[in-house]
Amino acid sequence: MSILIRGAEDFLSSARTLETPLTPDPEAFLKEREAASTFHTEEVPLGSLTNWHLGDRISHSSGRFFAIEGLSVRTNFGPTPQWYQPIIVQPEIGILGILVKRIHGVHHFLMQAKMEPGNSALVQYCATVQATPSNYQRVHGGRSTPYLDYFLDPGPRVVVFDQLLSEHSSWYLYKRNRNMIVEVPEHEEVPAADDFTWLTLGQLRGLLAQGNRVNMNARTVLSAIAYATPNPSAGVAREPDGFHGEIVRSHRSGASDDALASAMTWLIDQKAGFSLDVKRIDLPRMAGWICDEQGIRHHEGRHFRIVGLSVGATSREVGTWAQPMLQPNPGNVVCFVCRRHQGTLMFLVQAMAQPGATDRVELAATVQSTLGSYRGPRDLPPLAEVLDCDRSWVVVDAVQSEDGGRFRHADTRHLVVRIPDDQVIEAPANYRWMSLGLLNRLLRLGYYVNVEARSLMACLL
Amino acid sequence: MSILIRGAEDFLSSARTLETPLTPDPEAFLKEREAASTFHTEEVPLGSLTNWHLGDRISHSSGRFFAIEGLSVRTNFGPTPQWYQPIIVQPEIGILGILVKRIHGVHHFLMQAKMEPGNSALVQYCATVQATPSNYQRVHGGRSTPYLDYFLDPGPRVVVFDQLLSEHSSWYLYKRNRNMIVEVPEHEEVPAADDFTWLTLGQLRGLLAQGNRVNMNARTVLSAIAYATPNPSAGVAREPDGFHGEIVRSHRSGASDDALASAMTWLIDQKAGFSLDVKRIDLPRMAGWICDEQGIRHHEGRHFRIVGLSVGATSREVGTWAQPMLQPNPGNVVCFVCRRHQGTLMFLVQAMAQPGATDRVELAATVQSTLGSYRGPRDLPPLAEVLDCDRSWVVVDAVQSEDGGRFRHADTRHLVVRIPDDQVIEAPANYRWMSLGLLNRLLRLGYYVNVEARSLMACLL
Repeated sequence: MSILIRGAEDFLSSARTLETPLTPDPEAFLKEREAASTFHTEEVPLGSLTNWHLGDRISHSSGRFFAIEGLSVRTNFGPTPQWYQPIIVQPEIGILGILVKRIHGVHHFLMQAKMEPGNSALVQYCATVQATPSNYQRVHGGRSTPYLDYFLDPGPRVVVFDQLLSEHSSWYLYKRNRNMIVEVPEHEEVPAADDFTWLTLGQLRGLLAQGNRVNMNARTVLSAIAYATPNPSAGVAREPDGFHGEIVRSHRSGASDDALASAMTWLIDQKAGFSLDVKRIDLPRMAGWICDEQGIRHHEGRHFRIVGLSVGATSREVGTWAQPMLQPNPGNVVCFVCRRHQGTLMFLVQAMAQPGATDRVELAATVQSTLGSYRGPRDLPPLAEVLDCDRSWVVVDAVQSEDGGRFRHADTRHLVVRIPDDQVIEAPANYRWMSLGLLNRLLRLGYYVNVEARSLMACLL
Repeated sequence: MSILIRGAEDFLSSARTLETPLTPDPEAFLKEREAASTFHTEEVPLGSLTNWHLGDRISHSSGRFFAIEGLSVRTNFGPTPQWYQPIIVQPEIGILGILVKRIHGVHHFLMQAKMEPGNSALVQYCATVQATPSNYQRVHGGRSTPYLDYFLDPGPRVVVFDQLLSEHSSWYLYKRNRNMIVEVPEHEEVPAADDFTWLTLGQLRGLLAQGNRVNMNARTVLSAIAYATPNPSAGVAREPDGFHGEIVRSHRSGASDDALASAMTWLIDQKAGFSLDVKRIDLPRMAGWICDEQGIRHHEGRHFRIVGLSVGATSREVGTWAQPMLQPNPGNVVCFVCRRHQGTLMFLVQAMAQPGATDRVELAATVQSTLGSYRGPRDLPPLAEVLDCDRSWVVVDAVQSEDGGRFRHADTRHLVVRIPDDQVIEAPANYRWMSLGLLNRLLRLGYYVNVEARSLMACLL
């Protein structure tokens, strides 16, 4: 039934708890790895960064990594028809890959405990491989990337998932990474290197519920996992009950070819209805922004700042370095509203234009908002009132970090609100109810579901 | 088996010749419509165009239609790492839609005989609807667009195909149009308005073989047609033989989920390997180009010119108008090499980066070349030697026009060369053999097959 997921029909089994798990205490493993290294991060003037040039754009002396440029944006999406902003330009396509292997009959995911300088909780679980060509071709002379060849050259192993997916289209211009899941056969030995450990999906779910334990790059890869129809011969008998059972059933619903075609037609209508015109400009030409040696900031202190960060660490590819970071104002929130409709849990998504989106519009969560940027009620997005709903409706509430390699202290509250079956919601025409099965199928086709919504979907696994 | 094609399993039947066709002589119909109107086109200075402003960019006083800007391009695809060029910016998403209806059991396509000022053969068959929002919202006060509502609001009719597809990514920046095929039920009356007539696929194939009879917009929509597995109950018994039979079998081959996933993985490898960095700039900043009141041209006369065109006509939405046009140097050619492999006809495609491509790289024909732009052998694309192959290998050879609403005298020679089964071709790593079935499935997913290759695929129907 799915185009790209192969051999994934019993990922569900990995949600079971083993009696003797390989990693008995994933939290303790994180703490231990954090204690094994010393980290120090400090904000420094943007003009003081070695090898970074600050001029019409901010770029690295090697010409690699990323640059920060100005962007002029015009759109009919949202309340603001025209603005300027800094944006990160990173044309390289990185690999975000997770190795999966069935151990004692249960799928395990090879996760790395990794420090990222921007994260509030510095060490988190990331994908098996998280690397741009600049990293793994060792432009800055770092160490080699473990497990890279499993993804660059999978050989006879099963490529469960392989797709380009967008990232943070409000902060990155046309950024996409290659999201991969590769399954190694049970009989193949894959030793876990330092900082690496095998976790079940059940353990990952526990970490996701805690918040700030599974990094953004791991979440986007995990979001591609589908709970497909169980294979009767595999003997995965017990169906989960409660809310998780409803999630699994929503994954198995509504993903017919007709439903997909109908959703795509609706999304094309949205793309045709929203205009978006972006133009890369020199940083000093951004009206409303102050650019100097200290950094880049909005003249009213809104949105985000571009700052310099000095990092001292022993467990990353390079011991110490300094780089620009994007630091958003606090208050980011992403929220799905869900409701049961004819027995299936449906999620309210919106077609959202974002300046850096490769194809203008992608599906976003019900509410995706930078509350710290808003000036007043006029700026509040539609349906923001659900953020103040009855606490008993909240089924997911955890703070997750954005990519800590580019964003500093970018903590986003992840909410899923389940409203009563008879509760009426009046949503604008660019909103639509979808099952998780349909959303997952769209996600796997490429630039259809934005990273903020995918991150939330990972929290629902 | 297909995601988006519904109800299309017996498009094949429309290839049959009716004993009493609805339109006995499609060529005569074109000639008659051409005679019924008078047209006059004339090149005029770019600076003389009413309502068009010539400055840092060329734009219309309404802010609608399209603009022409400068583009700075850097890429590792092809022999030229860096250049400047003018490019057409047209963010609006137009509709290219064809109505199809089974008449006397045979599928008929509602085609319009339409004048486009840039075409060498002025009047050609175009899609039922070919309109941008600027057209159908009547920005320039023209007539209403017939049949538009069949596509804006298909109601219970079957949407056979609906997808955003790219156009001419060397001349347009991020241009895409909505390609649609809508089938009306047999019992629904759809009167053919003036200039419109119903043609079978067999008749369209004959016109395509003549060349310059079916316009680019019609060809891109037609390229989405798949020869799917015949429905035994439909009684479409006779299989075509000869070359056309091989085409039909190639359409029915190699489009499994595994083949699709493998092709996508290969294409992601190509996207990761090719860099492309484009930046919109002011026209006067394009080194190597001359911009003045006469027009825009390359200082060595290469590539193309931007000219003014004055048009007098009685059969288009507006009687007379003037507009900028892109006029390429002559010598454009697009060529597929095909060869039988294990009984199936396979086509050699290449992953090609083009400056205006929405996602950097799409699949192109074996050779896609603007011979008029080349300075010498170093500039010749790989495999260009097939253009001089044995004449007996040529199975398609016809000149087709590009979009005559934006391009002037843009006549592209369409070639398909079938090489002997034992002929060896050495192609670079960004080339791959694909069946028509796989190519068609990729095409229907969106930005995977470029318009030049799609146009060639339409000639193979």
